[in-house]
Amino acid sequence: MSLDLAAIRTAHDRIRPHIVRTPVLTNEWLDAACGGRLFFKCENLQHVGAFKARGATNAIFSLSDAEAVHGVATHSSGNHAAAVARAARLRGIPAFIVMPSNSNAAKIRNVERFGGRITLCEPTNAAREAACARLITETSATLIHPFNDYRVMAGQGTAALELLEDHPGLDLILCPVGGGGLLCGTAVAAKALHPALRIIATEPAGADDAARSFQAGQVVPATKVETIADGLRTTIGPLNFPLIQRYVDDVVTVTEAGIITAMRRLWEEMKIIVEPSAAVPLAAILEGKVRVAGLRTGIILSGGNVDLAALPW
Amino acid sequence: MSLDLAAIRTAHDRIRPHIVRTPVLTNEWLDAACGGRLFFKCENLQHVGAFKARGATNAIFSLSDAEAVHGVATHSSGNHAAAVARAARLRGIPAFIVMPSNSNAAKIRNVERFGGRITLCEPTNAAREAACARLITETSATLIHPFNDYRVMAGQGTAALELLEDHPGLDLILCPVGGGGLLCGTAVAAKALHPALRIIATEPAGADDAARSFQAGQVVPATKVETIADGLRTTIGPLNFPLIQRYVDDVVTVTEAGIITAMRRLWEEMKIIVEPSAAVPLAAILEGKVRVAGLRTGIILSGGNVDLAALPW
Repeated sequence: MSLDLAAIRTAHDRIRPHIVRTPVLTNEWLDAACGGRLFFKCENLQHVGAFKARGATNAIFSLSDAEAVHGVATHSSGNHAAAVARAARLRGIPAFIVMPSNSNAAKIRNVERFGGRITLCEPTNAAREAACARLITETSATLIHPFNDYRVMAGQGTAALELLEDHPGLDLILCPVGGGGLLCGTAVAAKALHPALRIIATEPAGADDAARSFQAGQVVPATKVETIADGLRTTIGPLNFPLIQRYVDDVVTVTEAGIITAMRRLWEEMKIIVEPSAAVPLAAILEGKVRVAGLRTGIILSGGNVDLAALPW
Repeated sequence: MSLDLAAIRTAHDRIRPHIVRTPVLTNEWLDAACGGRLFFKCENLQHVGAFKARGATNAIFSLSDAEAVHGVATHSSGNHAAAVARAARLRGIPAFIVMPSNSNAAKIRNVERFGGRITLCEPTNAAREAACARLITETSATLIHPFNDYRVMAGQGTAALELLEDHPGLDLILCPVGGGGLLCGTAVAAKALHPALRIIATEPAGADDAARSFQAGQVVPATKVETIADGLRTTIGPLNFPLIQRYVDDVVTVTEAGIITAMRRLWEEMKIIVEPSAAVPLAAILEGKVRVAGLRTGIILSGGNVDLAALPW
């Protein structure tokens, strides 16, 4: 199994009753600022406040009843955790969730209220994976990996499918990259539908493993991960990387100040709440890392889960 | 001339190229909180961040060339001001704007960047009207009143028209009331399309002129206006009041604490930015002033212009 347009279409049919067909918004001031037209696919307005509802729902509704009965398990900094908890509740099975202890309050609450059973761990990839493996041994739950899973990637790709149904004439799509689930789904869907459309991945300079890996031709973890974009701190997955090599045209990085500026612009101009990770593509435009003048650019706004009591301005 | 469904349909045809067909969003948590289904017409996502773009655009594009050449003038606490400035710019004519000196920073900036020529005045109805009358004498501009004008009301009614096109089966619609422009447009459109649909106006207890007037059968100004909902501080208009008597089923009031709570719930659950005035209908539900259990309720989210540096929590 790998990832292709057919799998993304199947995922869309499977999850449609359980997700929001999110609106695509435009803004005259942001268009003026960049000299092109921007089409924002608002996954911050998705259930659980993030695109993650798509992939988790696809994966969990793909399970056989025999698999599903033991429940599902995952590790996540937050949005995928809530998405797994929600999809598991819809399917009527338990969700065991490992979260790093530095997850923000909004994201933890978002898991708890869907009935997810949370285990906190040290905020490292190794600790997350170890804690999750332990849970799976104890419960026989099925791992729903946040990105290194073709079913999850297929679900995430449904956002681009909808975006391109609404706006088939896009010249490029900008997408944030953490582990690569959203990016792979987006790139595979878009290139299959419109081979000439360019896909640009955007990430914080403070978590630049995707850019380094893309350059090096192999997965290179970031030497030091330090970014406000808490959804993008993970290293790219082994199943994700070959798809990124094949379908993504470029990876660009942005500064922390640029992320905060872009986030605030999105709040002020568009009247929507986006989290730092979701502001990374606009930051790439405002910092001049991607040229969009005269073009029609799609942007996946990945999520909107922020702690309103701790805003970065 | 008065206000009827035909005028609202004509307005919709006139303004369609210049406005956003805003999305109607739903939220599973807010539905759970009230035991019914809520359909939020997101006029915070409208141009200028408020429904006011509709009425101002309709009024200004209704003018003859001979009238338009002298420009337009208005007085407004902010959102209507920006809407007039924007529509005037689209029409290519000057906009003279009187704003109270306590208008919030976001709203003043929103007028300036559309090229509106601002005159600040004392924050009283009398001072606003006097300053605006002076401007009109000097310039021969046409007054675009924020609410006491059938063309403006017809434009505002197009939001309800769209809401009911998308969701024809609503049982009631909740709408904030300040001067009554949005309320009249909403009520006339909704009652013409669905006579059994109930229209409930909602306002702050700290600016309860509509509730008092509705009770008394004549316009009664609020004795003391004190509310965070800066869009709802004005007294109901003489052209608006008879329409409210005829088409509105009830007027309820909410507390200041209730407005802030509802505003924060909308931000947290829906990931959208609404201003205090826009949170008043949800406050009425959460405070138990309107029963919506088991019903399908439309809510007009009137605007999203807040100063992010001065949030009320």
